[in-house]
Amino acid sequence: MNAQDIVTSIIPHKIPQQKGYGQANINIALSKYWGKRDIELNLPNNSSLSISLPSLGTKTSIEVINSTEDAIYLNNTKIANEELFAKRISLFLNYFRNNNYFKIITHNSVPTAAGLASSASGYAALVIALNNCFQWRLSNNKLSILARLGSGSAARSIFDGFVIWHKGQQQDGLDSFAEPINMAWQELRVGLIKIDTTAKKISSTQGMQNTVNNCELYQAWPKKAEQDLIKIKQAILVKDFNNLGKTAENNALSMHATMIATMPPILYWQSESVTTMHKVWQLREQAINVYFTMDAGPNLKLLFLEQDEYIIKQKFKNIIVIKPF
Amino acid sequence: MNAQDIVTSIIPHKIPQQKGYGQANINIALSKYWGKRDIELNLPNNSSLSISLPSLGTKTSIEVINSTEDAIYLNNTKIANEELFAKRISLFLNYFRNNNYFKIITHNSVPTAAGLASSASGYAALVIALNNCFQWRLSNNKLSILARLGSGSAARSIFDGFVIWHKGQQQDGLDSFAEPINMAWQELRVGLIKIDTTAKKISSTQGMQNTVNNCELYQAWPKKAEQDLIKIKQAILVKDFNNLGKTAENNALSMHATMIATMPPILYWQSESVTTMHKVWQLREQAINVYFTMDAGPNLKLLFLEQDEYIIKQKFKNIIVIKPF
Repeated sequence: MNAQDIVTSIIPHKIPQQKGYGQANINIALSKYWGKRDIELNLPNNSSLSISLPSLGTKTSIEVINSTEDAIYLNNTKIANEELFAKRISLFLNYFRNNNYFKIITHNSVPTAAGLASSASGYAALVIALNNCFQWRLSNNKLSILARLGSGSAARSIFDGFVIWHKGQQQDGLDSFAEPINMAWQELRVGLIKIDTTAKKISSTQGMQNTVNNCELYQAWPKKAEQDLIKIKQAILVKDFNNLGKTAENNALSMHATMIATMPPILYWQSESVTTMHKVWQLREQAINVYFTMDAGPNLKLLFLEQDEYIIKQKFKNIIVIKPF
Repeated sequence: MNAQDIVTSIIPHKIPQQKGYGQANINIALSKYWGKRDIELNLPNNSSLSISLPSLGTKTSIEVINSTEDAIYLNNTKIANEELFAKRISLFLNYFRNNNYFKIITHNSVPTAAGLASSASGYAALVIALNNCFQWRLSNNKLSILARLGSGSAARSIFDGFVIWHKGQQQDGLDSFAEPINMAWQELRVGLIKIDTTAKKISSTQGMQNTVNNCELYQAWPKKAEQDLIKIKQAILVKDFNNLGKTAENNALSMHATMIATMPPILYWQSESVTTMHKVWQLREQAINVYFTMDAGPNLKLLFLEQDEYIIKQKFKNIIVIKPF
């Protein structure tokens, strides 16, 4: 089954009912998704666990227009249909349309300074808006599958809080969707540290594929990632912050290690990434419980508790602190 | 068998005959040694391949003294017997002595600015000096085994040029010694780039043990290292510089990747290490054939050919260029 077949099997019809609206938050993986078992369907080699960041996300409205092409607006600016951002959305909308075209108005509240990709919240918000526009009344699991077809990590952004994206076993990926963990952690903080926000030379998708195909160390990753997820989930359930932090940090570093060991090498780190890592480790030596995670880019996301928020803000002047719950 | 038993089985006697003298060069592994299968005997989990750097090394003389302790001089300075450097040498000399003590005069020509450890050339030179002092007339293979007991990579410094250290299979390590590859490569150059020469917080030995014990990705390393060695040996035999360079660089990055993925993490890199890596990759994008390797530290060693020596010196102002042959 290709992506179109999957979509057709999930949605009840292709007749838009009205205008639609959706919103979703970005998420930070504590146990990372790295490597696809199916490139078209965005099926992962391993399950992943994330935390959503409220107040950072995407709001999207959709409406059917009388036109021969989509009209896509991002943060009040019309995006040319030739641009990759618009092309990718129009290709995704192809799964759902029946000769009709859409006006998509998207607002991202993710500040450029945060150094965060917004495709996860973007495709989650778009799928929620489509569900609203077509009045499909799909379950969250189904929305998660549809969002996944737009961007892998968007599967997780359908939900708030802690979320697990099950890798699934089936070829059609109908068992590869996200589910929330029913646990709030009021004291938890995520700190965003911008190192660089210019577009990366190697996309996450390309980086994953190169790693899977050209890194001998990657063979140990999928099993390790599953084990890390179990450890992190357990740490969340008992609010064991140090186990959460050290497992999440090691998981992120292990993902980057597989990239570094790829031929040719993939090093998303910049000099300041390394300086900041050493700074985090120095703070831990001073008994400040702070850990970091990193996605496929140079920026760090710090993990710490409310009790250390003051000192962390002192030590990292440009940090953006998020309270996930 | 412990190290003392091994030494006793190799050396014909413990009666020093005269003064002894030895010299040896440092070596840079192109295919790295990382992980021990026997800590006392310095037996590796994988074979390694190195190139010796002539003009950078150790000259050591040894003589029996009438004393109750060794007297150890490094670069014309007496080293206190309490210092780790002297302690380690005296413990090594214990294998060979019969109530007699030694005066050891060692000169290292490795400039501090090169950021290179000298234990490999140091223990190789010491073993050659002992062989001379005791008039054992041991084969180079036997000298390589004895040097290995002092410092793993010293096994390779018994020889010049390209050298393979066979990991061996035996528990006693009598099949774990180095041998030279009979091939000179006049055009090859090694460029030393100092990032930092202060003592590292985690020794190579400690780093290896932590990696072997606490890194899931390490399980793929020994097999990969053996495959890299074969590729690099083949590249040497046919003088295929690009295959040599890319395999050696990937091998070094993969070794560092295993450290980075260790819990707690081991990151020998500093910010300038990363800046220099990116600089090397940028030069390759400009069709300049330069690669790097790194040992367990922040410094880079560039690999390039004579034809690019001028441009490399222009690009890296503080580089020390070595002509291995």
